[in-house]
Amino acid sequence: MGADHVRRLDRGVSGARVAAVADPDTGRAEEAAAGIEGVTVHAEAEAALDAPGVEAVLIASPGPAHEEALLAAFARGLPVLCEKPMVPDSDGALRVVEAEARGGRRLAQVGFMRRYDAEYRRLKRVLDGGRVGRPLMLHCVHRNVSSPPGFTSAMLIDSSVSHEIDAARWLLGQELTAVTVLRPRPSAGAPQGLLDPQFVLFETDGGALVDVEIFVNCGFGYQVRCEAVCEHGSARVGEDNGVLLTTAGTAGAEVPQDYLVRFADAYDREVQAWVDATRQGRVTGPTAWDGYAASAVAEAGIRALESGRRTPVDLAPRPALYGTSR
Amino acid sequence: MGADHVRRLDRGVSGARVAAVADPDTGRAEEAAAGIEGVTVHAEAEAALDAPGVEAVLIASPGPAHEEALLAAFARGLPVLCEKPMVPDSDGALRVVEAEARGGRRLAQVGFMRRYDAEYRRLKRVLDGGRVGRPLMLHCVHRNVSSPPGFTSAMLIDSSVSHEIDAARWLLGQELTAVTVLRPRPSAGAPQGLLDPQFVLFETDGGALVDVEIFVNCGFGYQVRCEAVCEHGSARVGEDNGVLLTTAGTAGAEVPQDYLVRFADAYDREVQAWVDATRQGRVTGPTAWDGYAASAVAEAGIRALESGRRTPVDLAPRPALYGTSR
Amino acid sequence: MGADHVRRLDRGVSGARVAAVADPDTGRAEEAAAGIEGVTVHAEAEAALDAPGVEAVLIASPGPAHEEALLAAFARGLPVLCEKPMVPDSDGALRVVEAEARGGRRLAQVGFMRRYDAEYRRLKRVLDGGRVGRPLMLHCVHRNVSSPPGFTSAMLIDSSVSHEIDAARWLLGQELTAVTVLRPRPSAGAPQGLLDPQFVLFETDGGALVDVEIFVNCGFGYQVRCEAVCEHGSARVGEDNGVLLTTAGTAGAEVPQDYLVRFADAYDREVQAWVDATRQGRVTGPTAWDGYAASAVAEAGIRALESGRRTPVDLAPRPALYGTSR
Amino acid sequence: MGADHVRRLDRGVSGARVAAVADPDTGRAEEAAAGIEGVTVHAEAEAALDAPGVEAVLIASPGPAHEEALLAAFARGLPVLCEKPMVPDSDGALRVVEAEARGGRRLAQVGFMRRYDAEYRRLKRVLDGGRVGRPLMLHCVHRNVSSPPGFTSAMLIDSSVSHEIDAARWLLGQELTAVTVLRPRPSAGAPQGLLDPQFVLFETDGGALVDVEIFVNCGFGYQVRCEAVCEHGSARVGEDNGVLLTTAGTAGAEVPQDYLVRFADAYDREVQAWVDATRQGRVTGPTAWDGYAASAVAEAGIRALESGRRTPVDLAPRPALYGTSR
Repeated sequence: MGADHVRRLDRGVSGARVAAVADPDTGRAEEAAAGIEGVTVHAEAEAALDAPGVEAVLIASPGPAHEEALLAAFARGLPVLCEKPMVPDSDGALRVVEAEARGGRRLAQVGFMRRYDAEYRRLKRVLDGGRVGRPLMLHCVHRNVSSPPGFTSAMLIDSSVSHEIDAARWLLGQELTAVTVLRPRPSAGAPQGLLDPQFVLFETDGGALVDVEIFVNCGFGYQVRCEAVCEHGSARVGEDNGVLLTTAGTAGAEVPQDYLVRFADAYDREVQAWVDATRQGRVTGPTAWDGYAASAVAEAGIRALESGRRTPVDLAPRPALYGTSR
Repeated sequence: MGADHVRRLDRGVSGARVAAVADPDTGRAEEAAAGIEGVTVHAEAEAALDAPGVEAVLIASPGPAHEEALLAAFARGLPVLCEKPMVPDSDGALRVVEAEARGGRRLAQVGFMRRYDAEYRRLKRVLDGGRVGRPLMLHCVHRNVSSPPGFTSAMLIDSSVSHEIDAARWLLGQELTAVTVLRPRPSAGAPQGLLDPQFVLFETDGGALVDVEIFVNCGFGYQVRCEAVCEHGSARVGEDNGVLLTTAGTAGAEVPQDYLVRFADAYDREVQAWVDATRQGRVTGPTAWDGYAASAVAEAGIRALESGRRTPVDLAPRPALYGTSR
Repeated sequence: MGADHVRRLDRGVSGARVAAVADPDTGRAEEAAAGIEGVTVHAEAEAALDAPGVEAVLIASPGPAHEEALLAAFARGLPVLCEKPMVPDSDGALRVVEAEARGGRRLAQVGFMRRYDAEYRRLKRVLDGGRVGRPLMLHCVHRNVSSPPGFTSAMLIDSSVSHEIDAARWLLGQELTAVTVLRPRPSAGAPQGLLDPQFVLFETDGGALVDVEIFVNCGFGYQVRCEAVCEHGSARVGEDNGVLLTTAGTAGAEVPQDYLVRFADAYDREVQAWVDATRQGRVTGPTAWDGYAASAVAEAGIRALESGRRTPVDLAPRPALYGTSR
Repeated sequence: MGADHVRRLDRGVSGARVAAVADPDTGRAEEAAAGIEGVTVHAEAEAALDAPGVEAVLIASPGPAHEEALLAAFARGLPVLCEKPMVPDSDGALRVVEAEARGGRRLAQVGFMRRYDAEYRRLKRVLDGGRVGRPLMLHCVHRNVSSPPGFTSAMLIDSSVSHEIDAARWLLGQELTAVTVLRPRPSAGAPQGLLDPQFVLFETDGGALVDVEIFVNCGFGYQVRCEAVCEHGSARVGEDNGVLLTTAGTAGAEVPQDYLVRFADAYDREVQAWVDATRQGRVTGPTAWDGYAASAVAEAGIRALESGRRTPVDLAPRPALYGTSR
């Protein structure tokens, strides 16, 4: 995850530069930092925090190392993005909260990435918009194909369901006040001794109920679903195209009104692919020949529209430069 | 579109810097360039091409201006991303092709952004993978809520259907050889005199048939669909979650096997949002309090798992710093 | 419900004749029996059981009257179809079981109609077929637009969830061994004092878990869903076209292989509609003109196929007999 | 098809009795008539028409025999349900129309069974309801897994597309005025020499356009779809659960408001299954034990609701009569 975030900061997002990478295994740090101009590599997190050019910190070390790194960043007044779990034990997590609160300004963001998922954001907007009324229940499903070695029954809760814990708090704007865990007979597909699946029930301070199927060795796919059942409708994400909204008499999805909405990502990817290829001295993507062919076909189309007849398309011979690929 | 691309190059993609902006209306160029460090502004495209630091060109001017700008870029050996239509008339488009071919290396990429849409790419992969066999027909639908003022019957072909022209050539890897346009009675929702909808049929040099419903005043939404009917199955994008694949006996969609696939965009957006906020001296997103609450709830969950009982969650008082928003 | 079943026996199904109708309110019985040849009407159930021609009994009286009627039918050796609940209290239900068991042969069928629903039957077939492995959990949803006057919190369980109780037992082939009921804060749409929705959890003697959302004042629609999560896949009915089956890597529905499957109901309805109209001396449905028009258009189509051209259809003038309706 | 209809009249629908069966192959007629009380068997259609008890006729002979049988039925004033094609050649079909018109009253119904399909009927209701405005185009898909031996290119039109010809005329309430047939390169899955698939275009006297993909050797399933694109929305059947309606800003399906709508067929099947079993002296379906178990579980559920606790279910021992099946 750390190397993945280094790559993301270096090439995936704009406006950031990787100034320093820290890992007790400096060989791994070197590898992650390879090819990044001006970066320094460190064995100790604190040394990286003090490296020249460091203005913010992304923490992706194992959970137990987070508390120390967070406190060190706070001490330097550095903004932090900290992967989840912020701190695995709640006592340590509370110490971080108190340290930040003492400083009097927010420095930490925790890496609950579902809040940035397009579907979850739309679901949040639907709930906040008030159209479907107060949420009464959230039905959640969280399935993994298989669990990594060493995964314990407790980790189904604190590693997997923790995503639903945050998502439920965020979607509902409520705190969770009690929890019950039901344990059906484990699947034959789960490692010996692992209680998988589990069915987890949360109650909230707003009187809502949240149920979560967690099944980390389902074998058939990675599936994350959430249905909010509300006083005037239900809204669901995770298996439809966008939010499936059921209100009086109809079940359906919003249809976008604009190509900029539908193809926003395509424009971003197009320009990014062009920038990436250009920096490597290459040209990829649709060619001038494609541009010419489109014009020639469209012209034939307009003649066909006017004449009402089948109209042949005449193309010039294709120059060798454009090969046969399109 | 030009200003949108300036913003995209400046802040939406990584690895590029906007060095110069050209627009005959320099006020508009100034506006687009506002706040970008080191940028110069020009009335003439050629002046911009010669500005210091210019290593590549994105052309988003009106179509008739493209040919001259492309040839000027070619003359300077600059890579170009040119918005569609590359050149509106096919004679001009052919001159661009010939100029690039004379130069002996590819410099131009045309802005057919559907090739960068996640769903279209998956459809392309399905077709190229050979699993569904040779494509026999493409059924396409292209609907807009309403057309802009001045939109003509011919523009349904050369402005709108041109996307399907390129997508069909790319998906099939075939040239289009003939076209027929059918004109049902126009919709009452279309402006007086506009032949809308139209139904356009293309034949290809591989014996396939492409039909396109183009309806630019449908009123109900922006919809782009494409179904490839092949010798061993059908594959469709544009209304399902990903590619709907129908093969012997089943119709269904691929289920992702991994959270990195499902939430790849969420990770990118999360880190980008963090970088953007940090550069403005702000902290947004999930707070340390959210991190603490997740840990505390997960701990109660593990106790509930072990005891088999309903287990209350005990949270410390929330520091004022975290307000009531989550 | 009683009158509805009388109509169904008289005209909806084949092979049965309504011989006697009983209702303490004989006016209502007369009304239900109106127009049925040879029927007798009774105030007392037992009198109806003894009426000439009675070979079987359908009980659709209020639940508390069922026990006596069932025992009377058993005493006469008459087969019975008894609407649910068979007997509302379990002591009475057990007396019925014991009476039938004493007789040594089965006479009673209970009206759990979901076992006859096409989708539920397909789900049962999928589960029994073994393809998705042992069921681990059933997630059920049962929503009504609104509850009738006088509906109590307990009736959400014994009137509504009783359908899921039977469906779960039938689908799983397991007995339910324990139950827990969770009560989120009631919806503002529920009558004052009604605990609606509820979330009900059943454990089974096979180690499976069954959860049921029951929400009888949801306001937005009548929805019944059931997802079986199994060791090798999940299967769901109630919101898709047939069974949505998710197995390794794909989520999808079976595609029928034959028009007799797809249009089986249409053939039945067609012939039934024709019989019904004919008995009333009427002719409805597609006319000879429709048959002629289809032939004429098909002939033009074959000419178009052969010529490759647009081919006009020539229709004779339409006789007045066929009006303008089709 | 004939034997299938004999079975349907005898046992599938109510209100009819099979009085006579005719087939030049009287052995086949005997077989179809086996077990039907009072039926007579004939080699000649006319003899069957004159058999005692014949009040109406269902014609399911090969198409070329229809004209004679229809005229004979008309001569006797008998109502007829005639399988499609009514008469294969349009001249013969017109003679039937004229004969019926001369008689001055309708006697013939043609077997276009799609008009009786639940989804098509809902689509028709949507179109007639006016909510989506005037239909502009129908996009139809008609796919078979494989064609029977001897199927010709012309039969794709007059045997297969004839269903769409009638459905289009019925849905639109318009006559078809011209037809064009496009022939993509045949699928490798089609028999040598068969032009399959074809793409058929119809124009109507109301200015609408109807396109039909007919593909009778698609290999992957039997699929029949129809999307009506209208001035204010689109409505589609054949792949969703009911009618998929797209109107301003949303795409979705109607949600039923009532269990009688959702489970209407289940009630019919339940009672029919009970009648059928009873006539054979058998009892099938949910047992008294199932009724008892449901009551016992519901009682435990109500105690769980009241106590807020997990509540065990106590069942009496199951009598041997009920075996282990449920």
